[in-house]
Amino acid sequence: MDSTPEPELRSERIRQIPRSNIHLMSALSREVDDPVSLSWAKPASPTPDHINGFAAEMVESGRASGYSPGLGLPELREALCDKLQRDNNLSATPDEIMVTVGSIEGSAAALAVCIDPGDEVLLPSPNYSTHTEQVRLFSGKPVWVPTIEEQGWRLDMDAMERAITKRTRAVLLSTPCNPTGAVFGADDLKALGDLALKHNLMLILDEAYEYFLFDDHQHFSLGSDAKYRNHVISVYTLTKTYAMTGWRIGYLHARTDLVAEMNKAHNCLAICAPVASQYAALEALKGPQDVVTDFRAKYLKARDRLCERLDMLEGYFSYQRTQGSYCIFPRIEHPLGADSLKFCQRMLTEARVSTTPGVGFGVGGEGHLRMTFCCEYEDIDRAFDRIETWVKTL
Amino acid sequence: MDSTPEPELRSERIRQIPRSNIHLMSALSREVDDPVSLSWAKPASPTPDHINGFAAEMVESGRASGYSPGLGLPELREALCDKLQRDNNLSATPDEIMVTVGSIEGSAAALAVCIDPGDEVLLPSPNYSTHTEQVRLFSGKPVWVPTIEEQGWRLDMDAMERAITKRTRAVLLSTPCNPTGAVFGADDLKALGDLALKHNLMLILDEAYEYFLFDDHQHFSLGSDAKYRNHVISVYTLTKTYAMTGWRIGYLHARTDLVAEMNKAHNCLAICAPVASQYAALEALKGPQDVVTDFRAKYLKARDRLCERLDMLEGYFSYQRTQGSYCIFPRIEHPLGADSLKFCQRMLTEARVSTTPGVGFGVGGEGHLRMTFCCEYEDIDRAFDRIETWVKTL
Repeated sequence: MDSTPEPELRSERIRQIPRSNIHLMSALSREVDDPVSLSWAKPASPTPDHINGFAAEMVESGRASGYSPGLGLPELREALCDKLQRDNNLSATPDEIMVTVGSIEGSAAALAVCIDPGDEVLLPSPNYSTHTEQVRLFSGKPVWVPTIEEQGWRLDMDAMERAITKRTRAVLLSTPCNPTGAVFGADDLKALGDLALKHNLMLILDEAYEYFLFDDHQHFSLGSDAKYRNHVISVYTLTKTYAMTGWRIGYLHARTDLVAEMNKAHNCLAICAPVASQYAALEALKGPQDVVTDFRAKYLKARDRLCERLDMLEGYFSYQRTQGSYCIFPRIEHPLGADSLKFCQRMLTEARVSTTPGVGFGVGGEGHLRMTFCCEYEDIDRAFDRIETWVKTL
Repeated sequence: MDSTPEPELRSERIRQIPRSNIHLMSALSREVDDPVSLSWAKPASPTPDHINGFAAEMVESGRASGYSPGLGLPELREALCDKLQRDNNLSATPDEIMVTVGSIEGSAAALAVCIDPGDEVLLPSPNYSTHTEQVRLFSGKPVWVPTIEEQGWRLDMDAMERAITKRTRAVLLSTPCNPTGAVFGADDLKALGDLALKHNLMLILDEAYEYFLFDDHQHFSLGSDAKYRNHVISVYTLTKTYAMTGWRIGYLHARTDLVAEMNKAHNCLAICAPVASQYAALEALKGPQDVVTDFRAKYLKARDRLCERLDMLEGYFSYQRTQGSYCIFPRIEHPLGADSLKFCQRMLTEARVSTTPGVGFGVGGEGHLRMTFCCEYEDIDRAFDRIETWVKTL
């Protein structure tokens, strides 16, 4: 890639963004015979039929042809307010909602509104690698703050406060957390809110996995608390909840004046979210919700099996049990795990199982790997049968 | 919007982006009884049935459920290569193509790869206002370079060269040009290419209106010329060509290494383009092309009628005949036209015709207004009957 003869034309910002390890592993898997993938956060299940059916109907009637308003279809924003009230205890009005191209465009628009070049963004880490890259894309400085692995990757509030400088403008995190599977509880999020009030920071909270919590863990949306609301941008998606990753449809909630600002960024990035996808989202919200319950049950079963299989490999891997999301982030106990990229590449080419090296997920990520369990249930045993044989040869 | 009690949380970059005049006018039109709109660049025609039908089929079969590869579906990128060869005389390989969320995400990704904060981008002006805002979104400095109105808004190559400084990194323009309707010919674009080679600039060329050229004007894609190819990012869309604005589907062409860099930005902004829209695009490319011929004939007829009506208002408006696109950018000869925002607001509330004030389109835009003619044919006479009565009362 650097072999072009002409003078450098690439920006510094883009050179600071590495090529994604997920994409590297995908490219490598194409050379492997019949690999099992525990690497993509893409559900194996297709979008439920009633959602596809309604979207197809809207498309055929021509209603998906033209732009929607920038913030999204009014009826969709109304439905999102109902959802936020019902499931997040968050009272919102439609002008506090912006429909986006997945949650990813939501966090991009949020960052554009919160940071200028050189501004710092705290990322409790290990963290979603694209969040780090988004900060770089807007010429900000990502500041990784370690979380506490042995406490289930919990937020370290002291470390967070110590990391704040005059240039800190925002905190960006996902809860439930991709890649660690941690759920940040109400108490910790409120403590973070207090930090935001004290230091005048914006909190950008990516709640993509809000419906997939296990055991006694409860999802808490900090934007629902009036005390913190002015300092919170909550980023959501329908793509994880309803197995709709291909539809690229999400939304965000924030106070009205910030939404108007984010709409300026949105106009520069997308103009509006795809309209067929907006109709699909409307049906997802208004149709039967048992699909979500079913997905959760499926992921819980998969998590439990995955943990059982990891338990059988004590000495090779240790792990914090996933509290939410469909990711787990085991530590590789084998000495070769110190280089997680090499370890995962070998596991892919030798054991034919694709995972994602931990090194790409910020500080505290090296020496780990991310596995996703949104695959078919049988794939977990298929993968671990192979891993088990392979790892014992190392 | 600035009445929030808490300290400033908005970035400087977002404060430099004004609210779009198009959106202001849209908001105002909702208060007007039965307005006629010549303001949106959104075709009145719906997406052709065969495109909707195929997309609906793909959706119903579940094939639109999951992410595509970041660069786009392989079969779509193949079809785009065929299209570029056939219609743009441009030989491309699939790894030189990235499928985007409309052309807007394409120019955003291109800017992210070309500029760092403080870098300058030349915008031959009047120019598409969102291009200006995109430069600001990435903390660059937009530099407007006047075009020559009396020569049909032609590029002024001397002015372009004079505007280049040590910080100039790119030129961003649309051809055919929104809002002026100018078509930049092969000779002018090659001269621009020579400037890019001499000063090591990247040319980001938005060819959204490539199929809508009138009279003897010919579309020329500078990326088709091997001499300039390394310095060109060509940004395209299917949304204008096939009346698919709601689908948010476009693509770009550049050399492979730059596409790999733009894919990093794309991963931060969208992950992939919406998959249902990618299938719709595939059918648009592979299905019958007479829809495009029909749209062009329709817009030509509309342009001619619009110009006839403007001719009847000599003394109130003068204009350069649209060479391509479905926009025209008349000069307001009446003294009130010196404030185009006020003029257009009055025309909307008093004559009930919505247009877009020229002031938002960079230097040379003030004193003009943009009219689009992708509306229904009858709307042109409806609009001008009202304008004619109203303008004579001023």
